[in-house]
Amino acid sequence: MTAQTVGRWSDISAAERAVVEAVFWGRDLSRSELGRRVGFSKSKLGAEVAGLITAGVLEERGAHASTGGRRAEGLSLSRDLGVLAAVDLGATSLDVALLSPTLEVLDALTEDTDVRRGPGPVMARVKALVRQLLRARGLREGDVLAVGMGLPGPVEFQSGLPVNPPIMPGWEGFSIRDDLAEMLDAPVYVDNDVNIAALAELWHGGQQPQNFFVVKVGTGIGCGIVCGGEIYRGADGAAGDVGHILVDPLGPRCHCGNVGCVEVMAAGPAIAREATAAAQAGESPLLADWLEANGRLDPPDVARAAREGDPVANAIIQKSGLLIGQMLASLVNFFNPSHIVLTGGVTRMGPLWLASIRQSVYQRSLALSTRHIEIRPSLVGDQGGLIGAGALAMLGCLRVERT
Amino acid sequence: MTAQTVGRWSDISAAERAVVEAVFWGRDLSRSELGRRVGFSKSKLGAEVAGLITAGVLEERGAHASTGGRRAEGLSLSRDLGVLAAVDLGATSLDVALLSPTLEVLDALTEDTDVRRGPGPVMARVKALVRQLLRARGLREGDVLAVGMGLPGPVEFQSGLPVNPPIMPGWEGFSIRDDLAEMLDAPVYVDNDVNIAALAELWHGGQQPQNFFVVKVGTGIGCGIVCGGEIYRGADGAAGDVGHILVDPLGPRCHCGNVGCVEVMAAGPAIAREATAAAQAGESPLLADWLEANGRLDPPDVARAAREGDPVANAIIQKSGLLIGQMLASLVNFFNPSHIVLTGGVTRMGPLWLASIRQSVYQRSLALSTRHIEIRPSLVGDQGGLIGAGALAMLGCLRVERT
Repeated sequence: MTAQTVGRWSDISAAERAVVEAVFWGRDLSRSELGRRVGFSKSKLGAEVAGLITAGVLEERGAHASTGGRRAEGLSLSRDLGVLAAVDLGATSLDVALLSPTLEVLDALTEDTDVRRGPGPVMARVKALVRQLLRARGLREGDVLAVGMGLPGPVEFQSGLPVNPPIMPGWEGFSIRDDLAEMLDAPVYVDNDVNIAALAELWHGGQQPQNFFVVKVGTGIGCGIVCGGEIYRGADGAAGDVGHILVDPLGPRCHCGNVGCVEVMAAGPAIAREATAAAQAGESPLLADWLEANGRLDPPDVARAAREGDPVANAIIQKSGLLIGQMLASLVNFFNPSHIVLTGGVTRMGPLWLASIRQSVYQRSLALSTRHIEIRPSLVGDQGGLIGAGALAMLGCLRVERT
Repeated sequence: MTAQTVGRWSDISAAERAVVEAVFWGRDLSRSELGRRVGFSKSKLGAEVAGLITAGVLEERGAHASTGGRRAEGLSLSRDLGVLAAVDLGATSLDVALLSPTLEVLDALTEDTDVRRGPGPVMARVKALVRQLLRARGLREGDVLAVGMGLPGPVEFQSGLPVNPPIMPGWEGFSIRDDLAEMLDAPVYVDNDVNIAALAELWHGGQQPQNFFVVKVGTGIGCGIVCGGEIYRGADGAAGDVGHILVDPLGPRCHCGNVGCVEVMAAGPAIAREATAAAQAGESPLLADWLEANGRLDPPDVARAAREGDPVANAIIQKSGLLIGQMLASLVNFFNPSHIVLTGGVTRMGPLWLASIRQSVYQRSLALSTRHIEIRPSLVGDQGGLIGAGALAMLGCLRVERT
């Protein structure tokens, strides 16, 4: 079975679809656990699974490698289904990969980009990298099962169109789907980077009916929300836009027009701005030296200065963490998540930043909400954006009739 | 079929259960819409419905009153199933009612109470009022299908036990279920008042897959959340505890130990406290007169003074609205609800209060989140607490195997 037959997925029954999706989420599930999750008897599950193996949709895990006579119990999506193309577009970076249907990254390419150059040149590079990856594995465009792509800005999920993306001039309303349709006869799914990150965490955790959120802190601050094991998008698809939550009524003015937004006070540019001001005011000889040497100070410089014991750098990092924690405390009181995952460039600020966030959340949230809460960096790793984009693509295929 | 046969509900099929629940939520559904919601063909739906009518679970709407030959198309839960007992316990009021399975309030009794007297005396009154209502309709205890009860404090939903209820000393861990089991052989469901209010709104709106929340502002501030058409409780059942969200880092100290919580700055006691201070400082002759005459000022006094044009009263109301709006703006950015419903005593402050909340939300939330948002008082009316408690009881019956 190749990707060309995926059109037939719309013909498979609801029961088969439920089994395939449960296998996708529960990579290491035993058959008995699989049966429990889909609510099928052992015999019904056995019949569905046998049919799906024959059709080339599922395969028995370890069956390829197995040499002995013991029957492998685990199941996975079949590698013969084709490959997923995953695209993780950041403000200044482009990562493209091919993944197996089980979200194993087969090959990946990365290069610098500038999203402000607009969709024409950036999408040309996306297509070139996908072609290069396919050629390197001896695959054709027709072997691509689906494409998933994450963008550093808001996306209307149903249409896949960027909506008012502040750092992506020229992308407003640009159809990535139409653009990729020139090259690939595969469905294309687009979402913003924080929902993609949340999907990667969800897949990593095995889609238990979890309630948590992923907060990305870099140039801006955004949030991907998981409610009952699904990405939650809100009434207008605008859920998770937490960067402009007020943390200080007397704070500085933000580009959004309001004052005291957490983004303008605690994200990467705020850290760089405060370090520069401190260097210029003579408060930190170390930062002043670096500013003179390099002409600018970036968040990694502040992190390095803090590691070297600079008290001003430590205070800047602590302030960022406390303000982000204050914002998160409100959301914890409201949403009572099981955990909060931190991602984005600023998470590399180090343990003091994380400790300040935790301190602020614990101080401002109610005992019951924080009794079991875990606040931690992502466990998915550097390829989270690619894995999330792959998950988006695979789920898109599996749920084609539901959306 | 009487309530004694409800035990048999656990024997009805998943398909029948889906039909009954869809009828419960969609009171005015045509059969074709009902079929669409449960995903059944016309013939399958017809067979299920015919069986449920024969079993006395459903009845054809208008069939009792119909005299002509035209067949009524709508369906509802059968009145022959029995009655629901609904209890709405507030800090100082007790409302008890009998409802039909379609949540029509058949009879209701109300009296003053003081929840601080503890569970013994309060529950004795609950039982007395239920008995009185049953006797008045010629019903027996066995005719009660289920009991739903709302409390003015946190409840662990699975067990129905009050957890650390700040205004309910003596109720911690008290089993309302065990207490009512002495009298009634019916399942008992308990939840906090804001979830009950959210359930009433949800039922009123017909359980479309809605995302919204209900904010109750009285002595305290709490929030009931609806996510995807279901009450959302969070990881530890603590979701919606929004009263202690920070709105002013320089604000006064709250009973929770932190400073600047929205509750200590904007709820009923804050309004009364600020009015009293203004009267004592000679800033409002009107409020000073009333304070002298009555020895105290309550939120309704402030509302009345505002209606009479007192500028100090207007400023107090406006400040409360702006702070509550500021808190809501954060939640709107995060959750992107379709609407926010306001309930509780302070909502009677009048249009200036509501306008101040709206102003604050629109100013601090992002354009996309507020494009369609509606912020309004509850449409369910004064009996919302009883209707929500009735909905909790009926859903508990319908979902007995799911929870």
